[in-house]
Amino acid sequence: MCANTIPVLLCGLMVMFMQAGFALYETGFTRAKNASHTMAMGLMAFCLAMPAYWAVGFAVQTGEGRMVFLSGAGAGNGIFALFFFQAALMAVAAAIPAGAMAERWSFKSFSIYSVIMGAAIYPLFANWVWGGGWLSRLGGFGLGHGFVDFAGSSVIHMTGGVTALVGARILGPRLGKFGKNGSPNAFPGHHIPMAVVGTLMLAFGWIGLAIGFTLLGGDFRPGMAAVNTILAGGSGAAAAMLYMWLRFGRPDLSLVCNGLLSGLVAISASCAYVGTPAAVFIGAAAGVLACWGVFFTERVLKVDDPVGAFAVHGMGGAWGVLALGLFADGRSGAGMNGVAGPVMGLFYGAPGQLLAQLTGAATCILYVGAASFIVFKALGLAVGNRVMPEMEDGGLDASEVTVAAYPDFNLRKTSR
Amino acid sequence: MCANTIPVLLCGLMVMFMQAGFALYETGFTRAKNASHTMAMGLMAFCLAMPAYWAVGFAVQTGEGRMVFLSGAGAGNGIFALFFFQAALMAVAAAIPAGAMAERWSFKSFSIYSVIMGAAIYPLFANWVWGGGWLSRLGGFGLGHGFVDFAGSSVIHMTGGVTALVGARILGPRLGKFGKNGSPNAFPGHHIPMAVVGTLMLAFGWIGLAIGFTLLGGDFRPGMAAVNTILAGGSGAAAAMLYMWLRFGRPDLSLVCNGLLSGLVAISASCAYVGTPAAVFIGAAAGVLACWGVFFTERVLKVDDPVGAFAVHGMGGAWGVLALGLFADGRSGAGMNGVAGPVMGLFYGAPGQLLAQLTGAATCILYVGAASFIVFKALGLAVGNRVMPEMEDGGLDASEVTVAAYPDFNLRKTSR
Amino acid sequence: MCANTIPVLLCGLMVMFMQAGFALYETGFTRAKNASHTMAMGLMAFCLAMPAYWAVGFAVQTGEGRMVFLSGAGAGNGIFALFFFQAALMAVAAAIPAGAMAERWSFKSFSIYSVIMGAAIYPLFANWVWGGGWLSRLGGFGLGHGFVDFAGSSVIHMTGGVTALVGARILGPRLGKFGKNGSPNAFPGHHIPMAVVGTLMLAFGWIGLAIGFTLLGGDFRPGMAAVNTILAGGSGAAAAMLYMWLRFGRPDLSLVCNGLLSGLVAISASCAYVGTPAAVFIGAAAGVLACWGVFFTERVLKVDDPVGAFAVHGMGGAWGVLALGLFADGRSGAGMNGVAGPVMGLFYGAPGQLLAQLTGAATCILYVGAASFIVFKALGLAVGNRVMPEMEDGGLDASEVTVAAYPDFNLRKTSR
Repeated sequence: MCANTIPVLLCGLMVMFMQAGFALYETGFTRAKNASHTMAMGLMAFCLAMPAYWAVGFAVQTGEGRMVFLSGAGAGNGIFALFFFQAALMAVAAAIPAGAMAERWSFKSFSIYSVIMGAAIYPLFANWVWGGGWLSRLGGFGLGHGFVDFAGSSVIHMTGGVTALVGARILGPRLGKFGKNGSPNAFPGHHIPMAVVGTLMLAFGWIGLAIGFTLLGGDFRPGMAAVNTILAGGSGAAAAMLYMWLRFGRPDLSLVCNGLLSGLVAISASCAYVGTPAAVFIGAAAGVLACWGVFFTERVLKVDDPVGAFAVHGMGGAWGVLALGLFADGRSGAGMNGVAGPVMGLFYGAPGQLLAQLTGAATCILYVGAASFIVFKALGLAVGNRVMPEMEDGGLDASEVTVAAYPDFNLRKTSR
Repeated sequence: MCANTIPVLLCGLMVMFMQAGFALYETGFTRAKNASHTMAMGLMAFCLAMPAYWAVGFAVQTGEGRMVFLSGAGAGNGIFALFFFQAALMAVAAAIPAGAMAERWSFKSFSIYSVIMGAAIYPLFANWVWGGGWLSRLGGFGLGHGFVDFAGSSVIHMTGGVTALVGARILGPRLGKFGKNGSPNAFPGHHIPMAVVGTLMLAFGWIGLAIGFTLLGGDFRPGMAAVNTILAGGSGAAAAMLYMWLRFGRPDLSLVCNGLLSGLVAISASCAYVGTPAAVFIGAAAGVLACWGVFFTERVLKVDDPVGAFAVHGMGGAWGVLALGLFADGRSGAGMNGVAGPVMGLFYGAPGQLLAQLTGAATCILYVGAASFIVFKALGLAVGNRVMPEMEDGGLDASEVTVAAYPDFNLRKTSR
Repeated sequence: MCANTIPVLLCGLMVMFMQAGFALYETGFTRAKNASHTMAMGLMAFCLAMPAYWAVGFAVQTGEGRMVFLSGAGAGNGIFALFFFQAALMAVAAAIPAGAMAERWSFKSFSIYSVIMGAAIYPLFANWVWGGGWLSRLGGFGLGHGFVDFAGSSVIHMTGGVTALVGARILGPRLGKFGKNGSPNAFPGHHIPMAVVGTLMLAFGWIGLAIGFTLLGGDFRPGMAAVNTILAGGSGAAAAMLYMWLRFGRPDLSLVCNGLLSGLVAISASCAYVGTPAAVFIGAAAGVLACWGVFFTERVLKVDDPVGAFAVHGMGGAWGVLALGLFADGRSGAGMNGVAGPVMGLFYGAPGQLLAQLTGAATCILYVGAASFIVFKALGLAVGNRVMPEMEDGGLDASEVTVAAYPDFNLRKTSR
């Protein structure tokens, strides 16, 4: 570990940079009257969840009591570097729900949620997958190598995306989002360049994330992970562009951003286990799925998710873990989770791995869905989840975080 | 290569970050009514050119058929890391024309151009210089070490800049840019902080680019390359500031940004071959050249280049490759391109190197000029290069990429 | 040093990225009519101070005449990498005063100041602490290990923050800042998302800074430095949030940003010498101090500091160097500055170290205060420090740096 300390830290730093990307992406796709509030969630998700992860979350994830407050970590740089990297990953999951719950989530409820996410919800599932927990041991029951998620399609993204869906459902839609007949009204994002640059900054950090994971395990293929990741992201954006162009006559830049992110989400699980053609396919399919998922969330589920967090992270993540069970071609993962032979999916003759992936995805949905439901219901009783209607109408900036986002600019009536 | 894999990937990642910088820089210097469209080009240049580069471009550049779809790359991390870094470089070139052709370029033409750039235009010239092609073998005819371009003054920047000029010339100026008497009207950039931070983000990635190149060759001097690069950039900005201050009584922040970038463009070719005083001079001259080049493009060539892409990348790049032929002082490059002895320029008694540099620059202008002319003419016939006047008048955001950039802000009449 | 060259350069690159963070942070917290001017200072602080540091500053700091123009550095990559890292640190200090002096500082005075900062003010104090100068030798007089500042709480932040206070005091408040009875009027920042993302970008670079310092010395604990840094930053933000929430009924996003930065400033001195609980305490205390310091500067000192630069960097930095003298627990620093045994503070039985820290902090205040006072007074006589009232009223963008920041947006009357 020691020789890897600096690269692991630098990769963790790239992952931390994703917080800036999320803050811009989520704020750009919401309205000007709530821009400070959405940025504040982007800033504080990390600042609140990370101390909680330091206090107990990391101990839960690793299953080692001496990691409480890192008290038994001694002077070992390896442990500190690993904590740093893992804390950055956790913060990505913690940042996702803010996008789906933006423009109406009370800052008090958000703050307490962030602490619980970092202390408990995320670390427990991470333990099951990455900490030697039961999902990683399914191989002993003949399910391939057990549930495999290389870089977090489920641990990071489904955890964030399922929490986002449950939270947005419990909060209810923004005032005026659905008409009397139930048809959705468009609330366009107020600063598209901000959202696009946030997307690019997320992609930047994502590569660091993929490289970083190759440094933690014994299977050292950072180049392949990086190339697969960027190819899947690019393909996701291109596929989302073409899908909308063919279907509606022109591309939709918002959905291109979502397609790029969805491609990155989907390849995370399998970027070390597939070749570049499969990465391009997985990414492209995720890009189309993101477009379709946004419509599905809004029109079928009738859930108001301002930035499409569930479509991108929840659905894209589920596709990602299943894709590993389909496309893993045996190029790597020998001995993974204590099972002999490399990781292979259904298309390479190993249906057991797909079953493991289905089990892992279903577990994530059930566990995170239940845990976040309980947390949000409890928070609703304790402090309330949603701001008052008059605060929502006037914008949450002054009333929740004191400072209006754009005091020198003339804003349109409809958006104030 | 293996020991270098992680540093090469991290440097490639810094180069990829330049896409975010370009998107902000180009969008900030154009008008609000086209901000989503310009950002969309910044986002998609990479997402479209990169898969094309993966499919065939990298094989063209390296001259190895087994690199088609990276199919013969096997599990070698070194190849993947090299591809990752080279793809990021290619994307820089692909992003440059969008600035010059902004506010009127049809997104369909742009999309197809991006694929061709990544598959063919860029890789062929890169092969001639970096892939063992004929420009790198000019040393056999007595022209120094053959054409030498350490970090892309020509391969990346002249390629992008010449394409930008040809494209902007073929598109014609934006509606109303030139008055009846041919005098140019100012179309000020709509978001200067965005352009400035894009400039700073470009500088950040550029250092990673310079460091990365030192990792690819045997001549390992990353510190010198980084210091020369940042000194040339800073000198370029300072010189552009002073030039305008002395000439017009105050600095012009737009041209300071261009001066910084021009200094970075110019030092790219020679950052491993000169000392710090020469780097400062090369950068400062490039900074003044950028100011002068913007006026020259607009007033003499009568070409409408909204962000000054030709002045910065085309002219700055040409100056950069010639500067190597003047200032290379023999400190490094021994055995480069199979020629004995270090790389030296005219001022150190070696006129042959300057002739090689002139040959390379002229070849870049002729080849890229002809290739991009043919591509744009063919695209004009096939799908049209320019949007309809009424779309241009109303802004390209809604009509080309669906989403307006700033729906919550009151924009000025003249800019909508 | 050679094996560390690439990591040192990459960490230096992260530190350079802080320039983009500062530019956004400072501009977001000032008014729209001065946004180009504030960005221009963010851009040029680096571009002007860095060549001056190359010319003489680095030689002053290291005390080696052959470092003038790096002329005696030869081809040694280690020296170049060290210069690159140190120049980036210097640029952080140089960027700080622009925030405090924004919206009224003449660009000519700013430009000359930047050169003097890079050539003399910063390097001399850096020599005393990091270059073997007298503050580092106080251990010989029984004061612990002499003055210890691991990552710049004093050398970088107090230097910038004290200069900021002196400069803001000499410039005087912005027009209309204080009412007739001396009560301050709020001038809200014009673009809060810009300020928040700048804060996040600063935090990103800061971790690179902390990691980088561990590479320079023999005491190699990058993981601990990184974890302490991010914990202190997060704790600072959380503490500032809670302090305002408890005191005024809701959090203040501006002060949350300042709290985050103040936590990072404060932990810089001691991040290699304390455990994580102490880091959390030091950061949290700094977060509250930042809130209190902003009120103190404005209401007691009656100084107009638009972004709170003195509270964050000056007061946070002073707390940071004293905190080392309290909390250093003997885990590292053995033999530091030629004194046997590890570095320990008052709470671990070593009052001498706290005396050294007090001496260093007092020296920084006196030396930087006097030097910057002389420089600003001289600049006031020579070129004038403050723009004309009518320029200030109309905004400094067009009159000082030619380009208005937001020409396409309708701005509110009060802010133009």
